[in-house]
Amino acid sequence: MKLGDGVEQAIHSVTLLAGLPPDGLLSAQALAGFHGVSTSYLLKHLQALSGAGIVKTTPGPNGGYELGRRPSQITLLDIVLAVEGPEPAFRCKEIRQQGFDPLPPESFTAPCQINAAMLRAERAYRRELAAVSIADLMRDLTEADDGSIATRGCAFFDQYVRRAKTKP
Amino acid sequence: MKLGDGVEQAIHSVTLLAGLPPDGLLSAQALAGFHGVSTSYLLKHLQALSGAGIVKTTPGPNGGYELGRRPSQITLLDIVLAVEGPEPAFRCKEIRQQGFDPLPPESFTAPCQINAAMLRAERAYRRELAAVSIADLMRDLTEADDGSIATRGCAFFDQYVRRAKTKP
Repeated sequence: MKLGDGVEQAIHSVTLLAGLPPDGLLSAQALAGFHGVSTSYLLKHLQALSGAGIVKTTPGPNGGYELGRRPSQITLLDIVLAVEGPEPAFRCKEIRQQGFDPLPPESFTAPCQINAAMLRAERAYRRELAAVSIADLMRDLTEADDGSIATRGCAFFDQYVRRAKTKP
Repeated sequence: MKLGDGVEQAIHSVTLLAGLPPDGLLSAQALAGFHGVSTSYLLKHLQALSGAGIVKTTPGPNGGYELGRRPSQITLLDIVLAVEGPEPAFRCKEIRQQGFDPLPPESFTAPCQINAAMLRAERAYRRELAAVSIADLMRDLTEADDGSIATRGCAFFDQYVRRAKTKP
C-alpha cells in the first residue's frame, strides 16, 4: 500500500497557503519551487484540491492559489481524498463468488467478512486523518519552530506573494 | 491509495487453508482455481506468505500449502504486511528541507508534523488489522453461512486435498 507523492506535496502546499497574508496568492511555480518539486506534477494535485474546494484558483498571468476555506475547516482526510480519490484502499472483487463450482449469488446475502474487516480498519484510518486540521498542523509547527522556519517563510512570501485584484 | 489485488487473494487463500483437514495440503493451482484467479499471480503472494511463516510449503509434484501456524495466530495485519511489504503508505520525502533557500538540516531536529500525523493514522489502521485473526474470520463466516458455503468447501476439499507424506 502506498500513497502517491502528491499527498505530501499537497499537504505541505496547503499548509504554506494557510500562512499567506490576506488577499495573498501563490503561483504553482512558487509553491513547487518552495518545496523543490515538479511544477507540472504539483499542478495536477492543485487542480484536485481546487475541485474539492480546499484551494481557490484565480486564473490569469497574475493569478494563483489561496485557501478555499479556513485552515480549521481543512483536514488531512480532505486532502488525502482529494488527491487519491474517495475509493477505499481495499477493493473487494468478490472472489468468494468465483472459481470452481461457484455458489449462486443468493448464497451471499451477507457482505464478505473479509471486506467488512478491511473496511473497518480503513474507517479507523480515516477517523484519525479527519481529526487533524491544517490549523492543528500550523500550531504544532509553530511550537516546534526556533524561528528559522518562520523567517524562511516570511522571506519567501516577501518575494513571491501576489496580490489578488480587488473587485472594482 | 490502493492495496493490490494480492491482499484479497492472500486473505481468502489463508482462510481456505485454515479449513484443511490435518495433514492436508492444497496446490497453488487448486487455491487459484477455487477463487477464479491467476495461478502465477497467486504463486507470488503464496511465496510472500511462506516467507512470513504464515503458510508452510511442501515442495514436489505432490506438495502444496498448509498454514504455518494456528488461525488464531495469524492476523489480517500479518497478511497485509507479508503481501504489501512493511513500509508505511505515507513515505515522507522531507520536502520541507528542499526548494528555494532551504534551511540547514540542523533546523529540523523535530520530525515533520505532517509525517507524524500521517503515521499516527497508519498506526490506527494497523491496530485494527492486528485485532482480527483468521480464527475470528472463520467464526464470522460460519455464523453467516446457511450451510451452502461449508458444503461447497467440503466438496472442493474432497476433490483437491493432497496428503502430506508423514515422515518414516
